[in-house]
Amino acid sequence: MKPLTLAICTAALLASLGPGTSHAAGSGTGQPRNIILLIGDGMGEQQLAIARNYLRGARGRLLMDTLPVRSAAQVLTIEDRGAGQPMYVADSANTATSMATGAVTSRGRIATSAGSDEDLPTIVELAAAAGYRTGLVSTASVTDATPAAFAAHISERLCENPDNVERVVQATPYKDIELGGCPADAMRNGGPGAISEQLAQSGLHVLLGGGRKHFTVASETGPGSVLELAVDKGFTSVSTRQQLLASQPGARLLGIFASGHLPVRLQGEGGRIAELPKPSLLNRLHPYLGDVSLPPTMVCEPNPAFAGTPSLQEMTGIALRHLSADNDRGFFLMVESASIDKQAHRRNPCGSIGEVAQLDEALGSALAFARQHPHTLVLVTADHTHAAQLIPYVSLYDRVPVPIYTPGYLARIETPEGGYMAVNYATTSFSREEHTGAAVPVLANAEGKGRLPGFIAQPDLFRIMAAYLELPAARD
Amino acid sequence: MKPLTLAICTAALLASLGPGTSHAAGSGTGQPRNIILLIGDGMGEQQLAIARNYLRGARGRLLMDTLPVRSAAQVLTIEDRGAGQPMYVADSANTATSMATGAVTSRGRIATSAGSDEDLPTIVELAAAAGYRTGLVSTASVTDATPAAFAAHISERLCENPDNVERVVQATPYKDIELGGCPADAMRNGGPGAISEQLAQSGLHVLLGGGRKHFTVASETGPGSVLELAVDKGFTSVSTRQQLLASQPGARLLGIFASGHLPVRLQGEGGRIAELPKPSLLNRLHPYLGDVSLPPTMVCEPNPAFAGTPSLQEMTGIALRHLSADNDRGFFLMVESASIDKQAHRRNPCGSIGEVAQLDEALGSALAFARQHPHTLVLVTADHTHAAQLIPYVSLYDRVPVPIYTPGYLARIETPEGGYMAVNYATTSFSREEHTGAAVPVLANAEGKGRLPGFIAQPDLFRIMAAYLELPAARD
Ligand SMILES: [Zn+2]
Ligand SMILES: [Zn+2]
Repeated sequence: MKPLTLAICTAALLASLGPGTSHAAGSGTGQPRNIILLIGDGMGEQQLAIARNYLRGARGRLLMDTLPVRSAAQVLTIEDRGAGQPMYVADSANTATSMATGAVTSRGRIATSAGSDEDLPTIVELAAAAGYRTGLVSTASVTDATPAAFAAHISERLCENPDNVERVVQATPYKDIELGGCPADAMRNGGPGAISEQLAQSGLHVLLGGGRKHFTVASETGPGSVLELAVDKGFTSVSTRQQLLASQPGARLLGIFASGHLPVRLQGEGGRIAELPKPSLLNRLHPYLGDVSLPPTMVCEPNPAFAGTPSLQEMTGIALRHLSADNDRGFFLMVESASIDKQAHRRNPCGSIGEVAQLDEALGSALAFARQHPHTLVLVTADHTHAAQLIPYVSLYDRVPVPIYTPGYLARIETPEGGYMAVNYATTSFSREEHTGAAVPVLANAEGKGRLPGFIAQPDLFRIMAAYLELPAARD
Repeated sequence: MKPLTLAICTAALLASLGPGTSHAAGSGTGQPRNIILLIGDGMGEQQLAIARNYLRGARGRLLMDTLPVRSAAQVLTIEDRGAGQPMYVADSANTATSMATGAVTSRGRIATSAGSDEDLPTIVELAAAAGYRTGLVSTASVTDATPAAFAAHISERLCENPDNVERVVQATPYKDIELGGCPADAMRNGGPGAISEQLAQSGLHVLLGGGRKHFTVASETGPGSVLELAVDKGFTSVSTRQQLLASQPGARLLGIFASGHLPVRLQGEGGRIAELPKPSLLNRLHPYLGDVSLPPTMVCEPNPAFAGTPSLQEMTGIALRHLSADNDRGFFLMVESASIDKQAHRRNPCGSIGEVAQLDEALGSALAFARQHPHTLVLVTADHTHAAQLIPYVSLYDRVPVPIYTPGYLARIETPEGGYMAVNYATTSFSREEHTGAAVPVLANAEGKGRLPGFIAQPDLFRIMAAYLELPAARD
């Protein structure tokens, strides 16, 4: 929560430039310069292959596959204590912090530094200070780690609203679990407040996603709710797809379309997710004997709960309209498909597949916008990789006459082209799968040529974006 | 085994061009044109991250990470029967066939077509017919799937020598398992013979790796061994590192340095591999109770069995010397680090890490050669992804007071920089892990600019390489 000296200096420097200065972007043409950063949460190459095979076929292409510039980003995480030793697997808080601020931090942190807990200036704040409009769109609660790290600063991602800013307790099937809190960040203690409270007071031009429950609680500044605070601060609030689609550019827009995260588009047949193979009694006695029942195959189907939810593409389209209308400076927009990750935690491959489709469609809108607006850098990436693995439907060892099966959870999916995929989740015995630690893909439209080396560290994305927007921070 | 009509036509066409024609390569400069294709077997992004963290640190770079051109290749496999439906996870036989011939085939096949069993012309054959020298280097037996698919044609990868060409039987702990065979490919039945016999009669200029046991058996043409056949056909044979390093360019070189696959460079501490976590009795009764013993952490150490084995870099250096000496036409060289895959099957992360290091060092020699020889396209790729996953050493859910552990095999590795990695193998209950189905990285030196789109199908690699060498097949 401590404001960082560097942050203050940078902000002061930027304020001296001011929004109205003739700090021309776009190769001196004075044309607006825009960034659209699309993040697939948990969207590593395994998730992409699973989604591609289902949505487009084994030989098919996602739209993102056709982007002309490809890189990979090494994901960096450090311990919060001690000398900041490397940790090799990240969460969405520290990875979003990397992309938003260029700093490497510890798991759970939202744009604050590991150990020292100093606020790290974000690309949204720096861009806004330089006169750009800014927007965040997510299928998660807008207070969730990825969007939060672009516009808030707090020591623990779970401190999402004023009710839990001091103490987070999770009710679980086991017992109530104390998950810490952010007492120093509470406004009552002189801090900047919970994530929703910080977002309500942010300078964001567009903020779209889920998380109503984090806005309906009383603001720490009172007397009203956090939502009322946001409206006080100048946001126009919408809460249905119809209102969103009818909204006109002008005022700053806060759209919240669900109590928590937005429902996902697809689910497994009859709501099924991955299931445990069931070895026979004989097989449990000896692995060479007996047999194993595998989960029956399934297809993906529409999730009824999704009805009426704005798609990520619709939110992206509205955000682009609001950000670009009467704007000769440009904007920074982050678009997250959050539930690729959340559905992988829950071992629901169809859920993740539908959310990759959502990101790919949002990319379609981003590329269409970029074709009309030349100085628009479109980036697609993931924050970290995830548990889902595409394993052989027929084992490589199928000629060995013993039962062979995954020790984890398995979904067997019939694809529309008539093939069969086996998706395996086997990182943990717990009810939620773990993230994994591979490098993530980074893709860009032609505007990324010469700006994106073939391999980067994730925090380099901040520097590449800041340089594109010619922000002073990028010149250090 | 059936020769394909197209193959014959192409070969005839190429023969008419002949080795000595003035079919100038290298932008009309008449300079030799070379391809060095480095394949990390099973080297997906997870394996790379595990190796990078251990070898160079969380913020470190492998040499391959610094290559300026990056793409990803979609791996394609089809069923052998029926309409050739897609299968979503490959093996090294069908993927090497994709790269070597541009065709999509079924698992287990070596440069033959799915279902129809027709011979598919390979880049090695087409390049040789156009006057290029060709070489294959592998840390596996040279008869193993990856090298074999570049210079042999057979219906089943296991038909590696004349003794098993008709019938492959594997002795296992369970019982002898009948794994099929290639009766139609046996010379006694009018076929081209087992893989080793085909390699002995190939036009390869350099063939280096393991697999002596496949060459010491009697040739089908008799009376001598397959090795004697190779020498009859013009190969100089070497069998020790010293002989290899002392060998002089001139004659065609066959170097075989182990009975089977070459020993790997690294092993786990005291020979340990990944192990099963051991839940306590209480935890077996209820997942919220008791505790779990995880495998102790370990480091990687040199594998004593590696002593005296030529490194992949040494083999690559010798191959480059032999291929380039007095050669104004150019060459095609494939270099495989095979045991990244083989050690992942065996759940030995240190084994895989050392073999990624070997590939990266061989790349160093390739890039040094390319700096001296301008028209040299250096490509690095993998054939398919694999089971190893880098999972959190400390669970994302560590605040939940129940035992959490992977259901698969786990290795906990202390890295030289003092961090801790957890590597998980959990695709199967069998003693050998499975491959997985993600797209694989493709990297290139600057010579690849403009030739390698950001996303390709694996068979496109054949077309890109054939076009680079201006082979007629590439002009179809
Ligand atoms: Zn997650
Ligand atoms: Zn393998």
